[in-house]
Amino acid sequence: MKSFFLVFLFGFVNGAIHNRRDHSSHNKILNKRYSPDWNDLDTRPLPEWYDKAKIGIFLHWGVYSVPGFGSEWFWSNWKGGNRQCIDFMTKNYPPGFTYQEFAPAFKAEFFDPDKWADLFVKAGAKYVVLTSKHHEGFTLFPSKRSFSWNSVEVGPKRDIVGDLAKAVRNTSLKFGVYHSLYEWFNPIYEEDKRKAFKTQTYVDTKLWPDIKQIVHDYKPSVIWSDGDWEANDTYWRSTELLAWLYNDSPVKDEVVVNDRWGIGIPGKHGDFYNHQDRFNPGVLLHHKWENAFTVDSGSWGYRRNMQIREILTIEELLQQIVTTVSCGGNALINVGPTKEGTIAPIFEERLLALGDWLQINGEAIYSSSPWEYQNDTLNGKVWYTCSINRSNSMKRTYRSGQVTAIYAILLEWPSDNRLSVRSITNSLRSRYNQLEMLGNEGTYLNWKITNGDVEIELPDRATVKSNHAWVLKLATT
Amino acid sequence: MKSFFLVFLFGFVNGAIHNRRDHSSHNKILNKRYSPDWNDLDTRPLPEWYDKAKIGIFLHWGVYSVPGFGSEWFWSNWKGGNRQCIDFMTKNYPPGFTYQEFAPAFKAEFFDPDKWADLFVKAGAKYVVLTSKHHEGFTLFPSKRSFSWNSVEVGPKRDIVGDLAKAVRNTSLKFGVYHSLYEWFNPIYEEDKRKAFKTQTYVDTKLWPDIKQIVHDYKPSVIWSDGDWEANDTYWRSTELLAWLYNDSPVKDEVVVNDRWGIGIPGKHGDFYNHQDRFNPGVLLHHKWENAFTVDSGSWGYRRNMQIREILTIEELLQQIVTTVSCGGNALINVGPTKEGTIAPIFEERLLALGDWLQINGEAIYSSSPWEYQNDTLNGKVWYTCSINRSNSMKRTYRSGQVTAIYAILLEWPSDNRLSVRSITNSLRSRYNQLEMLGNEGTYLNWKITNGDVEIELPDRATVKSNHAWVLKLATT
Amino acid sequence: MKSFFLVFLFGFVNGAIHNRRDHSSHNKILNKRYSPDWNDLDTRPLPEWYDKAKIGIFLHWGVYSVPGFGSEWFWSNWKGGNRQCIDFMTKNYPPGFTYQEFAPAFKAEFFDPDKWADLFVKAGAKYVVLTSKHHEGFTLFPSKRSFSWNSVEVGPKRDIVGDLAKAVRNTSLKFGVYHSLYEWFNPIYEEDKRKAFKTQTYVDTKLWPDIKQIVHDYKPSVIWSDGDWEANDTYWRSTELLAWLYNDSPVKDEVVVNDRWGIGIPGKHGDFYNHQDRFNPGVLLHHKWENAFTVDSGSWGYRRNMQIREILTIEELLQQIVTTVSCGGNALINVGPTKEGTIAPIFEERLLALGDWLQINGEAIYSSSPWEYQNDTLNGKVWYTCSINRSNSMKRTYRSGQVTAIYAILLEWPSDNRLSVRSITNSLRSRYNQLEMLGNEGTYLNWKITNGDVEIELPDRATVKSNHAWVLKLATT
Amino acid sequence: MKSFFLVFLFGFVNGAIHNRRDHSSHNKILNKRYSPDWNDLDTRPLPEWYDKAKIGIFLHWGVYSVPGFGSEWFWSNWKGGNRQCIDFMTKNYPPGFTYQEFAPAFKAEFFDPDKWADLFVKAGAKYVVLTSKHHEGFTLFPSKRSFSWNSVEVGPKRDIVGDLAKAVRNTSLKFGVYHSLYEWFNPIYEEDKRKAFKTQTYVDTKLWPDIKQIVHDYKPSVIWSDGDWEANDTYWRSTELLAWLYNDSPVKDEVVVNDRWGIGIPGKHGDFYNHQDRFNPGVLLHHKWENAFTVDSGSWGYRRNMQIREILTIEELLQQIVTTVSCGGNALINVGPTKEGTIAPIFEERLLALGDWLQINGEAIYSSSPWEYQNDTLNGKVWYTCSINRSNSMKRTYRSGQVTAIYAILLEWPSDNRLSVRSITNSLRSRYNQLEMLGNEGTYLNWKITNGDVEIELPDRATVKSNHAWVLKLATT
Repeated sequence: MKSFFLVFLFGFVNGAIHNRRDHSSHNKILNKRYSPDWNDLDTRPLPEWYDKAKIGIFLHWGVYSVPGFGSEWFWSNWKGGNRQCIDFMTKNYPPGFTYQEFAPAFKAEFFDPDKWADLFVKAGAKYVVLTSKHHEGFTLFPSKRSFSWNSVEVGPKRDIVGDLAKAVRNTSLKFGVYHSLYEWFNPIYEEDKRKAFKTQTYVDTKLWPDIKQIVHDYKPSVIWSDGDWEANDTYWRSTELLAWLYNDSPVKDEVVVNDRWGIGIPGKHGDFYNHQDRFNPGVLLHHKWENAFTVDSGSWGYRRNMQIREILTIEELLQQIVTTVSCGGNALINVGPTKEGTIAPIFEERLLALGDWLQINGEAIYSSSPWEYQNDTLNGKVWYTCSINRSNSMKRTYRSGQVTAIYAILLEWPSDNRLSVRSITNSLRSRYNQLEMLGNEGTYLNWKITNGDVEIELPDRATVKSNHAWVLKLATT
Repeated sequence: MKSFFLVFLFGFVNGAIHNRRDHSSHNKILNKRYSPDWNDLDTRPLPEWYDKAKIGIFLHWGVYSVPGFGSEWFWSNWKGGNRQCIDFMTKNYPPGFTYQEFAPAFKAEFFDPDKWADLFVKAGAKYVVLTSKHHEGFTLFPSKRSFSWNSVEVGPKRDIVGDLAKAVRNTSLKFGVYHSLYEWFNPIYEEDKRKAFKTQTYVDTKLWPDIKQIVHDYKPSVIWSDGDWEANDTYWRSTELLAWLYNDSPVKDEVVVNDRWGIGIPGKHGDFYNHQDRFNPGVLLHHKWENAFTVDSGSWGYRRNMQIREILTIEELLQQIVTTVSCGGNALINVGPTKEGTIAPIFEERLLALGDWLQINGEAIYSSSPWEYQNDTLNGKVWYTCSINRSNSMKRTYRSGQVTAIYAILLEWPSDNRLSVRSITNSLRSRYNQLEMLGNEGTYLNWKITNGDVEIELPDRATVKSNHAWVLKLATT
Repeated sequence: MKSFFLVFLFGFVNGAIHNRRDHSSHNKILNKRYSPDWNDLDTRPLPEWYDKAKIGIFLHWGVYSVPGFGSEWFWSNWKGGNRQCIDFMTKNYPPGFTYQEFAPAFKAEFFDPDKWADLFVKAGAKYVVLTSKHHEGFTLFPSKRSFSWNSVEVGPKRDIVGDLAKAVRNTSLKFGVYHSLYEWFNPIYEEDKRKAFKTQTYVDTKLWPDIKQIVHDYKPSVIWSDGDWEANDTYWRSTELLAWLYNDSPVKDEVVVNDRWGIGIPGKHGDFYNHQDRFNPGVLLHHKWENAFTVDSGSWGYRRNMQIREILTIEELLQQIVTTVSCGGNALINVGPTKEGTIAPIFEERLLALGDWLQINGEAIYSSSPWEYQNDTLNGKVWYTCSINRSNSMKRTYRSGQVTAIYAILLEWPSDNRLSVRSITNSLRSRYNQLEMLGNEGTYLNWKITNGDVEIELPDRATVKSNHAWVLKLATT
Repeated sequence: MKSFFLVFLFGFVNGAIHNRRDHSSHNKILNKRYSPDWNDLDTRPLPEWYDKAKIGIFLHWGVYSVPGFGSEWFWSNWKGGNRQCIDFMTKNYPPGFTYQEFAPAFKAEFFDPDKWADLFVKAGAKYVVLTSKHHEGFTLFPSKRSFSWNSVEVGPKRDIVGDLAKAVRNTSLKFGVYHSLYEWFNPIYEEDKRKAFKTQTYVDTKLWPDIKQIVHDYKPSVIWSDGDWEANDTYWRSTELLAWLYNDSPVKDEVVVNDRWGIGIPGKHGDFYNHQDRFNPGVLLHHKWENAFTVDSGSWGYRRNMQIREILTIEELLQQIVTTVSCGGNALINVGPTKEGTIAPIFEERLLALGDWLQINGEAIYSSSPWEYQNDTLNGKVWYTCSINRSNSMKRTYRSGQVTAIYAILLEWPSDNRLSVRSITNSLRSRYNQLEMLGNEGTYLNWKITNGDVEIELPDRATVKSNHAWVLKLATT
């Protein structure tokens, strides 16, 4: 058995393992009550579904889809003096036009949540995260504290969060919400801020009641917090909120939250870490993380004038996914719907191409684990994941186990059809010596080892099923 | 001296005088602190300016001026199933159009507060009351708790309350605000209501902070409360508010409030009573009151399709004023500005005609007091006021004093130029025997008394200055 | 009989009578065909209805009612560099906004032609003239040559001309149309103009086909031509048009046209003369004429920001009417409807006040004739009309006859109730010695003649029915 | 030399060549005047640029891009009773909303003609055809006869035709215009139609003046006529127009027109034939033709709710192009710009993918000629073109000449890398025996002939430059 890799995720370096998930059995966990301090909250095990999901869809939708210019930060940029935004307004709108006056044009007349959900299923995603409220403060649900500034009363005239939650749950996907803690221009928040956050009127009368409304009404599996960076977690009362979420909320067993809960918190606390946007460290992290990135490289919200050169190609998209999953992350892929309620065809195309790829190669992604190596030592275009048998009696934590297969994912096809790598030399020498390409199963590939490097003979590209990011699977015979 | 009428207002009947204003000197009053109970609040003397003012202008302005249909209750009527409102929406707007979506068209592009103030001065008004917020919840000032549902952020893009307050104060007029306690569709209020008003979240997080913002920012001389009828004063915390207003607010010496502070309060408590809209009892009341009525008989808010037959004539307007003042009330005359920010010319015409009348006859109105009689015993078209010399040493209260002149106001000119009345017989017989018509001063009128009735020979109408509601003044020689 | 005034209208001065209407009997006229030259066209007798009507309503309605700013010349003024118009646009609209883009907001949602017609009846008008097309080119009827620039396809979505024609005809009133020959910005017209009007493409492909469509579809009793001043009648083909109208059109017997048919034509040719706008010469003219003036002294089209001081008072309105009719003119009283389709209440009020006055005094107006004198020689506030018995065998022309009554219309009431005049001295001395005030019939007034001047004792104003412009009637006993 | 193919285009079958282009030299042609009859007009040689261009971009842009629903036939479908269109309007617009009222929202705020032109260059197109006016009648240029219904006066406020013409000409591309003869709802046209086209008012006052304005102002190289099908060419005066175009217009040497000039004309007359939309016969035609097709398979105009599954893939796009060019046609590839003035990214992606393909394979397309065979006899996935040396002395017509290379275009890559074809067997046996793949030049491919079929050994796909529609070139050594 010693030839098997035993992988202890998130803490196998230097023997100094401080993984919170090692301390308690799952059963115990379910009964435990968390106290509202980070030390204790950090002991909560990550709900398993999230780590297995790997691929999520992120949706930034709001009033900013009406100007559809610059980015979802349009309002803040405009008021902050951004020249392009100012010029855009000056050229196209009457003097004094306000951001709020965009909202009636956010009609969502073509919004068909079932069609969206169907697309996300076809894309191979396992969860969906929708902006229930971005920094603009406009809520996509009937917030009781956003009277006349929400999607039911102005614009779409729908409970968008509710309608999409239902449609997504009618498939096998999980539904989550993005939620911005702060609101750029909410005067109650501004007043707290002016008082150096010594008052918490905004938090007490707006923020937590809204979040609780969301949790009760939509039971989100993810709460993707944002807009935390101006104040400490003590202002936001973050630990109280999480303790409530983990102990008493209707989603206490399933919910996962990210790490944006106040100054200094990102990368330190939370079920998974987002760090900054588009975080993709390129090395294995010792805590579950997520790479949230956007298909339109220039914006999270829909831009009416985006150019094709700004859109990630399917190759770039797969590179993000592969490197992320290889390093222990989930990929949360953002598209910004239009004010009409459509997903732009270029985004559909990318998502469907991803779905096609995952149909062939999903085995290397879903439920996979990071392997001993992430990026091949010799060939920077090759990244690894592995499959671990967790029903093995050996499992001391739910994330360790017996490696049953290793996946080498190749981002570029070598023009001579010969792939040189180094990090799997020992694996091939040991029992992981059966080598196939996903989509071409049954055809075993030849390799030879020279000076510790492996040279693999790839199949004829004319017969290869996948068009990008080919996966080689090393299994035991 | 015994031939002088001594008038003790609000309580001279049957000798049983229970007038709160008799108990304390003005000096004491200024130092007194009121406790938040009605008994004590009721002891506050009425600030003198209000009783002397007599004529105020009431302005109902809000998002309802955009549909300008039905009345300012459009939203509630529409949602409540009113057929005309539903048909209007069906015919003119796309399905699903919401009331909030009217707001951007409330442009107020012609709003010139100085021009308005000038008109109100010319109309002879002494105070102005503007809807800072009607039941729709849209605030005409930047309420910190009406984010994106106020006149600064949507529509006019102005602090209308602030701008008008400044313009009005640049004249000699007082500025006051109307403010609706409830908001038809504010979900926080609705939730309190659903809980039988056992929670007060709306009151604590929206209502009082808003009123305090108004008081601090605009220092209104009148707070004209409305929308109180669904809940008790204990829900609204009315007495606490008034105690704060009278004790600690920046307007504590000057402010007057009306009586709409909860179920059962109207007509019982408050600096002046409004009772129901258009209240005009026709008899003297023992507490200061106000007749709030509207020039467009069909609506308080502007109606785009009002018809001339629905507009009070100048005669009807004067009848309201004369009967009101005669019975101890103030007249609060409402006009609804347009969404453009104009006062419709028909309203301008009425207000200027009133101003012309008051130029001639104001002596019988401003600073006048009710007299012994209100409506003549013989001639229903004649109403009385009087002038009281308050600098007289006799004054026990600031409202009693020596009657220096009696005014008989004649709403209809007799076709034979002879006016028959009865209630002034004794006065004419005593020292009030010098009889003139205002506008025709210097020409003393002849009269004769027959069987206790007086027959007065009116001047030639060809020379009379006033065109309506002629005033006869009885003075001492 | 010599004591009767024989009045030969339009040509009794110096015996040099050149009245076209003297030459032919009505019967002959009906059978006559006119040749397309002014000499012949000028021989057409004026259809009798028009002279008897005296009072018409003029309606300027178009896209200009949407900005409702400046005047109905808004477009031209704006493009011509008018500072206020430019500022208005800059302040309220996005850059590049075009006049055409106002049109969708011309909704006319409250337009009720029957209600309008009823108002015009109540106002005492006998005909209505509506702008079928103003200089902007937007047609209020479905012009086949104004595709997408007419009231059926943009804005009201109604055939406004047709709908109002029908409603007006359901009463006893006549219906006519205003029609602008030129269109400021029609490129076909502009091209003719650039070519010094040597081409007539506009006239041939747009103008005459439109007028013929109007005549065929709506059979107007008046064609009120305008916008003629840039080109000669030969360019407009005016005489051909009139010859067709008089000879072959479905309105040949009834139609009247004004005089705006090309450079140099106004005041020279046409059934009646308008000369310039608001023409009111103050002396008798020898050809039927019309004073077209507007109740809003600042604009013919509706102005959203008109001020009451700019609106004619009822006294000013009556002065226009009385002086006009006295001098042989008709009064065409303009009001500009709103984009909503309403007549502003201030206009309603004026029109109804006029109707009230005409109820009492119409006898001196309708079917009246100018008298020997127009304005009294002594008293400038007195104007005359008379009634002529045309069934009298003496009538040589349809306008001469036996004077049966003389009307002296008094614009100002003398403060001593005594009216001094001079021009009726002889009449009173002769058989027109029975003197009454209209509204006070049955009460004969006393007068005395001193040095050729008459002093009339007016009735007591307290009993006089009319409030303005009192009419004294001199009849034979 | 006899082993060379001599290709006489458009009429080499059965020796019965009836190609109008054979009769006269180019020089003669330039001096020739055409009479307005089809027989003579048909003798005009096709301007060479057009046949060489092969790839054009078609742009359907108009007011229909505002609803962006159904297709560019939205207006007609809606008014014709189409259920989806009616429902769309009922759901999203107020009752009575007209098509014309969409126009102000056609803002084109992001329209950058240089950016468009750059895209079309990158796509490898050689000409651009823009809808100067579609059936809706809205002109994208300031038609003098579409007052207030054109892009300068409503919506974009630009001369779109002029701006794009300039930008396109700043590149090496030709600029052409689409122009609809009829207008669905133009009342002048409707009247002619009602009169069974016995009047031609529409043609004389609108149609021809507009076309002449276009030709004079923009000098289009293509006039792509449409909307001809309701009337005969005699109604449209088509032959007169073409005679003028060919004889006297400023574009007489360069212009090409299609075949939609009246009932019965398509496929019979015109410089090139379009037949019906998306015409692609699959066999060589004896007259120059064009396959106009659209990347969004469901519409020519932009649809806001198009789905990715309705968009041609790059493979489908190349199939259209290859089969078209192989059979003697040009490919006119349509995309519908958005009301914002953008080309949707999905269309950009397709066009750039086409450009990439043409970078490698353009040699087989531009300036190519149909070859002896079009579709391979054995392998339906292979299509042929060829290159002809026209400077060869032999050329009897400008289209015949010496074949210098044959191109076999392969729409599907065989999974065994071996391509079997039959139609080039003889060519390979003769002097066209040097076989390369475009993009892989320098590497000669092996083949063997068995029973008249050729089997070609394709290069390793790992090294092949093109991703779709690979081109094999047969040249002489």
